[in-house]
Amino acid sequence: MAKIEKRSPLAPETFPDLPPIAGVRFATTEAGVRYKGRTDVMLAVLDAGTSVAGVFTRSATRSAPVLDCQAKLGGANDGPAAILVNSGNSNAFTGHHGQTSVQQITEAVARAAGVDQSRVFTASTGVIGEPLPHERIVAKLDELTEALDAARIKDAAEAIMTTDTFPKGAFARVDIDGTSVTIAGIAKGSGMIAPDMATMLVYIFTDAKVEQGALQAMLSELTDTTFNCITVDSDTSTSDSLMLCATGAAQVDATGNTAFHDALHEVMLDLAHQVVRDGEGATKFVEIRVTGAASDADAKTHALSIANSPLVKTAIAGEDPNWGRVVMAVGKSGAAADRDKLSIRFGDVLVAENGWVSPNYREEDAAAHMKGENLRIAVDIGLGTGESTVWTCDLTHGYIDINADYRS
Amino acid sequence: MAKIEKRSPLAPETFPDLPPIAGVRFATTEAGVRYKGRTDVMLAVLDAGTSVAGVFTRSATRSAPVLDCQAKLGGANDGPAAILVNSGNSNAFTGHHGQTSVQQITEAVARAAGVDQSRVFTASTGVIGEPLPHERIVAKLDELTEALDAARIKDAAEAIMTTDTFPKGAFARVDIDGTSVTIAGIAKGSGMIAPDMATMLVYIFTDAKVEQGALQAMLSELTDTTFNCITVDSDTSTSDSLMLCATGAAQVDATGNTAFHDALHEVMLDLAHQVVRDGEGATKFVEIRVTGAASDADAKTHALSIANSPLVKTAIAGEDPNWGRVVMAVGKSGAAADRDKLSIRFGDVLVAENGWVSPNYREEDAAAHMKGENLRIAVDIGLGTGESTVWTCDLTHGYIDINADYRS
Repeated sequence: MAKIEKRSPLAPETFPDLPPIAGVRFATTEAGVRYKGRTDVMLAVLDAGTSVAGVFTRSATRSAPVLDCQAKLGGANDGPAAILVNSGNSNAFTGHHGQTSVQQITEAVARAAGVDQSRVFTASTGVIGEPLPHERIVAKLDELTEALDAARIKDAAEAIMTTDTFPKGAFARVDIDGTSVTIAGIAKGSGMIAPDMATMLVYIFTDAKVEQGALQAMLSELTDTTFNCITVDSDTSTSDSLMLCATGAAQVDATGNTAFHDALHEVMLDLAHQVVRDGEGATKFVEIRVTGAASDADAKTHALSIANSPLVKTAIAGEDPNWGRVVMAVGKSGAAADRDKLSIRFGDVLVAENGWVSPNYREEDAAAHMKGENLRIAVDIGLGTGESTVWTCDLTHGYIDINADYRS
Repeated sequence: MAKIEKRSPLAPETFPDLPPIAGVRFATTEAGVRYKGRTDVMLAVLDAGTSVAGVFTRSATRSAPVLDCQAKLGGANDGPAAILVNSGNSNAFTGHHGQTSVQQITEAVARAAGVDQSRVFTASTGVIGEPLPHERIVAKLDELTEALDAARIKDAAEAIMTTDTFPKGAFARVDIDGTSVTIAGIAKGSGMIAPDMATMLVYIFTDAKVEQGALQAMLSELTDTTFNCITVDSDTSTSDSLMLCATGAAQVDATGNTAFHDALHEVMLDLAHQVVRDGEGATKFVEIRVTGAASDADAKTHALSIANSPLVKTAIAGEDPNWGRVVMAVGKSGAAADRDKLSIRFGDVLVAENGWVSPNYREEDAAAHMKGENLRIAVDIGLGTGESTVWTCDLTHGYIDINADYRS
């Protein structure tokens, strides 16, 4: 169960040396929720005045912790705040028991950490439909609050993993009015994994000060071009959660600051790419760029249709520059397209244009690009100025191994 | 290339003994379009007065033959008609060359078979983006017209196969006012297959007389609950074509006849199921039935979300009654759902209800159902009266073998 499999071939060489963020401290423990011999709970406590923003799955069957977080976001933000995450059990589709677990945990965190319960956010990731043994987590809270330390963010990244093959972290520094502020984030996720409903969980922290409404708006905007532009297998979790916390400890206001916005985008994109690089069975990291669509929304529809097509993904796994399948995916997407105006590139190789294969196309050129680990497929629709970029991975025997052969 | 692989484990035992349909004759030949040593062209010639209806892919990148058929349907129907189909080359994304090929072939069929060119319909299935060597087909037309025979419908079913593992046929008889009329159809399709754009092609014939507008309306209506309710891998071909021809030779009018409508539905459903049973790598045939949705459209959205989910399909391959993934697929579909009103059955086993696993559920019961070859997953949304049934197959290593490991 959820043993760490062989590290993804697309993993970064090392975990980045994440700097501590003033105003936030971390602790982890082995609560034995489901896994043995590894940490499975992380607690983050945020100083008073921290702004907290979040985006969550749009699933109609979302989990109890997600519903609780959504109800609390946007409330008062004068006191300290806390985030508690467990792996091993997603507390999703657990009926009234699920709400009870969230109540018990948030109440215990509030007491142990001295945080108002309305500012305690939780997330759970792991097997679905089994009651969360919340008493195991509650029993560890005093130990956790005593161990809180700003340097333990890497421990936190490890405690929230399920069948991820590597912990995921990213950071950026920005100079604002002569003061250096830092953004650091962690993520877990590698698609969905049997027998669990895997989830994507992301926590990003900064010592900049950002007014809460502005923080939420910026997070929502940047999510659209980062985490909402990745797909491993087109399946959407019941627990996806992304939270951004600005402690303000650096004493500099980053609200409306463009450099901060860009640095946050960079951190979010880095983490999003790491999730794809840990996609189940992935051997290729693929950028799909669509331009010339009738609108940005149409471009994203085309791009996701290509990225989610099992035939495109298996062709990539086979290193086959099968542009016919890209034509197929554009055709089926439902967004506007004109067969005779499409052009398609694999890497820098122009493959198809004017409704047919390009006259100078030589398959060996595109095939050479497909042998790489980082691939680019670009499609110009030829109708307008809409554009979108999404990222995905290939569909391999490894995916079937993880999700079919591996019985709960 | 397109060799007939090992017969699908879900294939019917034998090809049905299709009766001849008065008013339609078939011939096939080896034109060597792409395959060697097998038939690859079929010609059907229909007597004067035959009503012809058709439905086609909605792909924005549909093939030249599809565009030509769509332009011709609904025209005058007093003279004879003809259908010519080749396998091995789909004549899709072939630019102006594609239209030229359709022109050359339909002109030659018109001349050889004595049919007005506006009543000659064609389809092509096979590799995409390569010019169709239409001259090889044109050269065989005299041979084909000389060989026309009402008994050769099974030959026709074989000639249109690409990597199908068995030919597909179905028939039904109906008594109308004391006269027996017959409906017989053939189909090809097993999803998409490397390096081809596989397509679904279906031809159904009847000796009943049905007015053309009524025939088209009935075909469109029945397609929605048969061929539009199957999915192998969520990828939509550029060439899907379904044609229904009523020769009227039985001298009985079936327009508006309920028994005829039901018999046609039965033939269409049988052929649609055979396509799923030949799904690439399939080892399980799965019915997904959704009831209690806010509308029929919502029910179909949920059902297709379940049927297309890679995680549901891999769980089925692993014989895992993973109802959590069904919850996930309902949640992501975008149609209305309420976690606490869902109920889920695997076979006759009630698995989940009231937002959690059913109190009497024993996993061994559901696991026993999953070991079968024909599976049923039923979901009641608990919101309304909308319902829909779709059919799919599992996602196995065989699919990856066919589509990734098998290089063009």
